[in-house]
Amino acid sequence: LAGDERARALAGLGDWSVVDDRDAITRTIKLADFVEAFGLMARIALIAEKMDHHPEWTNVYNRVEITLSSHDAGGLTTRDIALATAIDRLVGG
Amino acid sequence: LAGDERARALAGLGDWSVVDDRDAITRTIKLADFVEAFGLMARIALIAEKMDHHPEWTNVYNRVEITLSSHDAGGLTTRDIALATAIDRLVGG
Repeated sequence: LAGDERARALAGLGDWSVVDDRDAITRTIKLADFVEAFGLMARIALIAEKMDHHPEWTNVYNRVEITLSSHDAGGLTTRDIALATAIDRLVGG
Repeated sequence: LAGDERARALAGLGDWSVVDDRDAITRTIKLADFVEAFGLMARIALIAEKMDHHPEWTNVYNRVEITLSSHDAGGLTTRDIALATAIDRLVGG
């Protein structure tokens, strides 16, 4: 993604930010506890597998930090935007 | 954990290494694919929740990187060893 198309795609997302040193987006979500955090991860995992597009993510107790980038394309693609949008929907924007 | 007790505990574990800049242990496990990797994470999550002791972990596709440390105790404790041992059991040593 580049130019206007990229800008429009990013503008349509929830609370994601662009990663400084690589062409990727990241979002950190805080839940109530580990059960809620892993529950969210399980829901995202099923969606990601269905999309055949997987996140890089880290979990520490109630915190889930998700980074999306298309490794095979070397940067942000519409597949990342689609997964980000699905995640936004799960967490309510 | 310190001294002999720590050394003995670490010697009893599978393929874990001590993290350089903090009192923690880490292990990276490679699975066949994302389904296998997240399946392992789900099994670990249930055990961790039962133990009330949670990992810091990162997943990228088929790779799961797990770090264990007891935040409240400021370092490695018997609870980390217990969780590490349970994870070793799941992955066969």
